[in-house]
Amino acid sequence: MTRPLELHPDRLFPADPTTRDIARTLYAEIGALPIVSPHGHTDPTWFATDAKWDNATTLLLAPDHYVFRMLYSQGIALDDLRIPHRGGVPGTYPRAAWKLFASHYELFRGTPSRLWLDHVFAEVFGFDVRLDADTADLYFDTITDRLAGDDFRPRALFDRFRIDFLATTEGAHDSLDAHHAIRASGWKGRVVTTYRPDGVIDVEHEQFKGAMETFAALTGEDVYSWSGYLAAHRKRRADFRAAGATATDHGHATAQTANLSTAECEALFAKIVGGTWDAADAELFRAQMLTEMAKMSVADGMVMQIHPGSYRNHNAGLFASHGRDKGADIPVRTEYTRALQPMLDVVGNERDLTIILFTLDESVYARELAPMAGHYPCLKLGPAWWFHDSPEGMRRYRELTTETAGFYNTVGFNDDTRAFLSIPARHDVARRVDCAFLARLVAEHRIEDWEALELAHELTDGLVRKAYKL
Amino acid sequence: MTRPLELHPDRLFPADPTTRDIARTLYAEIGALPIVSPHGHTDPTWFATDAKWDNATTLLLAPDHYVFRMLYSQGIALDDLRIPHRGGVPGTYPRAAWKLFASHYELFRGTPSRLWLDHVFAEVFGFDVRLDADTADLYFDTITDRLAGDDFRPRALFDRFRIDFLATTEGAHDSLDAHHAIRASGWKGRVVTTYRPDGVIDVEHEQFKGAMETFAALTGEDVYSWSGYLAAHRKRRADFRAAGATATDHGHATAQTANLSTAECEALFAKIVGGTWDAADAELFRAQMLTEMAKMSVADGMVMQIHPGSYRNHNAGLFASHGRDKGADIPVRTEYTRALQPMLDVVGNERDLTIILFTLDESVYARELAPMAGHYPCLKLGPAWWFHDSPEGMRRYRELTTETAGFYNTVGFNDDTRAFLSIPARHDVARRVDCAFLARLVAEHRIEDWEALELAHELTDGLVRKAYKL
Amino acid sequence: MTRPLELHPDRLFPADPTTRDIARTLYAEIGALPIVSPHGHTDPTWFATDAKWDNATTLLLAPDHYVFRMLYSQGIALDDLRIPHRGGVPGTYPRAAWKLFASHYELFRGTPSRLWLDHVFAEVFGFDVRLDADTADLYFDTITDRLAGDDFRPRALFDRFRIDFLATTEGAHDSLDAHHAIRASGWKGRVVTTYRPDGVIDVEHEQFKGAMETFAALTGEDVYSWSGYLAAHRKRRADFRAAGATATDHGHATAQTANLSTAECEALFAKIVGGTWDAADAELFRAQMLTEMAKMSVADGMVMQIHPGSYRNHNAGLFASHGRDKGADIPVRTEYTRALQPMLDVVGNERDLTIILFTLDESVYARELAPMAGHYPCLKLGPAWWFHDSPEGMRRYRELTTETAGFYNTVGFNDDTRAFLSIPARHDVARRVDCAFLARLVAEHRIEDWEALELAHELTDGLVRKAYKL
Repeated sequence: MTRPLELHPDRLFPADPTTRDIARTLYAEIGALPIVSPHGHTDPTWFATDAKWDNATTLLLAPDHYVFRMLYSQGIALDDLRIPHRGGVPGTYPRAAWKLFASHYELFRGTPSRLWLDHVFAEVFGFDVRLDADTADLYFDTITDRLAGDDFRPRALFDRFRIDFLATTEGAHDSLDAHHAIRASGWKGRVVTTYRPDGVIDVEHEQFKGAMETFAALTGEDVYSWSGYLAAHRKRRADFRAAGATATDHGHATAQTANLSTAECEALFAKIVGGTWDAADAELFRAQMLTEMAKMSVADGMVMQIHPGSYRNHNAGLFASHGRDKGADIPVRTEYTRALQPMLDVVGNERDLTIILFTLDESVYARELAPMAGHYPCLKLGPAWWFHDSPEGMRRYRELTTETAGFYNTVGFNDDTRAFLSIPARHDVARRVDCAFLARLVAEHRIEDWEALELAHELTDGLVRKAYKL
Repeated sequence: MTRPLELHPDRLFPADPTTRDIARTLYAEIGALPIVSPHGHTDPTWFATDAKWDNATTLLLAPDHYVFRMLYSQGIALDDLRIPHRGGVPGTYPRAAWKLFASHYELFRGTPSRLWLDHVFAEVFGFDVRLDADTADLYFDTITDRLAGDDFRPRALFDRFRIDFLATTEGAHDSLDAHHAIRASGWKGRVVTTYRPDGVIDVEHEQFKGAMETFAALTGEDVYSWSGYLAAHRKRRADFRAAGATATDHGHATAQTANLSTAECEALFAKIVGGTWDAADAELFRAQMLTEMAKMSVADGMVMQIHPGSYRNHNAGLFASHGRDKGADIPVRTEYTRALQPMLDVVGNERDLTIILFTLDESVYARELAPMAGHYPCLKLGPAWWFHDSPEGMRRYRELTTETAGFYNTVGFNDDTRAFLSIPARHDVARRVDCAFLARLVAEHRIEDWEALELAHELTDGLVRKAYKL
Repeated sequence: MTRPLELHPDRLFPADPTTRDIARTLYAEIGALPIVSPHGHTDPTWFATDAKWDNATTLLLAPDHYVFRMLYSQGIALDDLRIPHRGGVPGTYPRAAWKLFASHYELFRGTPSRLWLDHVFAEVFGFDVRLDADTADLYFDTITDRLAGDDFRPRALFDRFRIDFLATTEGAHDSLDAHHAIRASGWKGRVVTTYRPDGVIDVEHEQFKGAMETFAALTGEDVYSWSGYLAAHRKRRADFRAAGATATDHGHATAQTANLSTAECEALFAKIVGGTWDAADAELFRAQMLTEMAKMSVADGMVMQIHPGSYRNHNAGLFASHGRDKGADIPVRTEYTRALQPMLDVVGNERDLTIILFTLDESVYARELAPMAGHYPCLKLGPAWWFHDSPEGMRRYRELTTETAGFYNTVGFNDDTRAFLSIPARHDVARRVDCAFLARLVAEHRIEDWEALELAHELTDGLVRKAYKL
């Protein structure tokens, strides 16, 4: 039995009529504003080459670990979903993989993936029936068809999605060729990079050695001396700024920072590059580098983003067979109050510095992050992240942070995605959930309706532009 | 002044009319389904002997630590409530104890005990006035009266409650005589056991030595050698399966697991049985045994339940006077991401294994448990447990786990109770809270009404049967 | 554009009409009850001298770290707000500071400060337009004007606010002169002190040495011997009781307690006063002193309050320039289950002792505090504290504690404030949020309407008087 697919205009608004009406009114004002996406993981070569995507499985299933992790958790083999492994792409037909996914689509009930995918299906591809085993072929054929049209090339979709700003993320050892090609092409879309130096900071990363070699080659600095290493960071930050970047990003295991003397830094760095480090040295080096990056941000004005708390590659067997980013990163408890203090001792009272904090540990929202962001001039709160980029997650974020940090110490929404087609869907969910939250404050007479409207604009557009210096 | 007792048909549904109507419709479909109770602590001798209970105090007050802990917290002496201590049963008259309880019944306002007890009073005993000091005698006399009838014997109530499956819990050193007697009696009620080997795994338990002796006697194995000890577990698991068990249960202090070599296991086990262990050895042995049990589950198909995070017998004075299970077990912060990894390295990607995780630490729902259950094929999430088996606790459970783990990585409801008469009440609360949650998703247009109905069936009946292999 | 200021009669009630009506009915019964404030930080000299306050900035801005921390977080200099630093009061004009605050008043949207301030503006000063840049002068002038009248002296406001009981907090080394002056004046207002001995217990506090000297002088005891030190505490507790105190208060870094032998105490104390202690000794001494204070409370009947979990003076630069209590105290994760056990081993089962626990770590409400308060006779739960003294914070508190601890193991509301004018506002918020919570329980048929009314009285008036022995 084929079921109709319709996106309800009131979706994600509270059922109470008074509150829903307020939410509707707010959303009517901001729902269609252009998209500002200051943090994400789309591939810049898409916009550099503007090449067509080929089919639904390659575009929507294979790169989306939110989706295939859920299927895997229910005993479905990744090979049957045509998820690439270290040896290459499995021989499964794309259509067969798609059909397998479609026939288990009920697994996503109640998840944000379901909301995003339905939005993509209805709004981007125009489907009016739901995805299931019966409609799998229709979906696969229609999507393949559409992707063959020029109006589904990356740049055309970028315009259609009304994206005003899109940041990607590249390593310190990235050539930035794709970004240079975008600029050279004369295309007007604003796609910029973000400086993510983890590869040359985290000595426990398997690519550290190679990344350092490229880092040396790209900068011409002696990256194996402490001063040369710092100079290389400064050069690359300048390269990234020249390519449009306004921000850096740091994905560390913990939020630990340090404040070592130069002599201590030199001794530590010698161990790191000399290969005589242990796990505590590796952690201390990452900690010290957050402070170094903060100091460089004071100097060059780049906004700093800290994303700690994910235990990467938790599933050892899967990492061996399939490598990174396969849905097996699991959050851990994360401490911020003590961890950030060494860095804040150095830069905490800087008014022109912006450090944006993210977390996967919601227990710190009200306890640690909101009190710090509600005091330190340099600190702002990033939006609900990763597993918490969801209706309930965003609601908890506002409920747990607003009373202590206010709205103005937050920075709008990040879609944080490599799933390009879902970007409008993700921003739409965030806008709806924010309108619902503001509507409740109005309905409970905690703020006035005109204040909620101002805030809706700030949460959608104003705060992100200010925080990321756009 | 006597107050009427009525169970409102809309109890636990949201007040918003739209959402309430949806919840009603869902509940109308699943509210009366038979009860599947895969995890609990009723006494199998009740069903073996089918003997009558004698009075309200013995049946409803003395065994229910949810109830007498609250009274104790307000300064009421356990002796005055006729709670058994190590020396026996206090001389307090059952009627006097009941009256003391009744005259403090207001203490339970807002607690799940109140919901369960009122359900028992109204539905099982037919009261239409509320319990208080004035009605205490009426209650006591009426209950005593009813319990004298054949229709209040355990098997009659089992049928009246429409229980389709009921699991009890027995130690590895239990003879299973009661279960054998149930089978031998020819009674058709499906009451089965669960393998709970903590007594022969936790060397810090005061009964370890005695339990090991019985374990040796029951199996005929040399349980003081590592290989004999494992063989004894295998034999007893087979005994339990023969008595109908489909699951094992593990109530450890932490979720720690380990993955030692055979030589390391042998050395550790020698310390455990040799009495030369320290606290770290005891913990490591429990950790290793979770992995051993998981491996045996791969082999024999038994579902594995892990219940960590309770600090048992926190009140030393009370433990000295009254022993275990007197309401003085207090939860502690519990870590899962790192703790489970050694076991998951061994069995994490097994598709036919089911490990059900429980927690008393709600901060791990969204942070650790849902991400792991939403990835690992072997992991499922048990329902809200113990202190969290309550309307708010169950609501938080759904809000915090669904978006990342989905509904299909959960396993329905566990009543986990030794209070037999409250089993229908507890399942009813769970069904109502689940319908309320699903209704909100429908009212906010996050799922369709027909999906909510399918899910209501799954949460009540489908998932529990699948997870526990019934 | 000037905006009207009106306090909506339904503020903080849920929007759902059924629930809102129940909340209104409850609030109508208890909203106007006299204020009982058993824990706060107002200055007793206000009531001793009954001197007039001078202007809006001195009265409302400079002492309120909830307010200026938010402004500081947005890059506003404390000097520009006329916040006193170690060198004295900055030269900024009070009117200029007020105007700066007013022109950033939007920062407080969604915060409790906004609710409290608007209440003060409307109810205490009679404003009917909102504070903003345009009305800043009007506000400043009007407030200055009003403060010049006799009806705005501290005692007049105390009466106008209908405060029935107000506790302040003084150190063990305080002379209590202000409280003696209040008594000697013949004024009938019940303003009493609270014994807060942290200054002579926390050897890491910079004022420890001086406090000990005053402690010795005030008691005539040899406070540098263990027995003399304990005797001095007993004397001062008696002094405080004579001045009306019914409670003690303990603001420790952690909840750690200890149960040392007398010989161990003497050895530890010798290190503390001998200056040979390390951080672990300082912590152990604080831990032991909680147990000593609990034992003294058993003897003298004083209620004991424990407020752990704040990392004081987190911003080292700000502490150097401005000193303590400048909005830079940041909560840390706090453990209670294991930490409190040594003390509970000694006094846990005392029925006539009351220990009130507070937390800044909401993750312990349901996991640790409610289970302990729902068992131990001596333990009660203090209300949502500090950053959590807010509508969402109070709602979470009830949702997370009620099902396990019940209502009767809580103790009503604490305003915990040095902002005297905001006391009615804070109690009003608490009463409204409690009525909203009770209304939801009624609307969901979890309690009866008459029970909610009894509970509304208990939460507003009954429990606080009982817990604090008023």
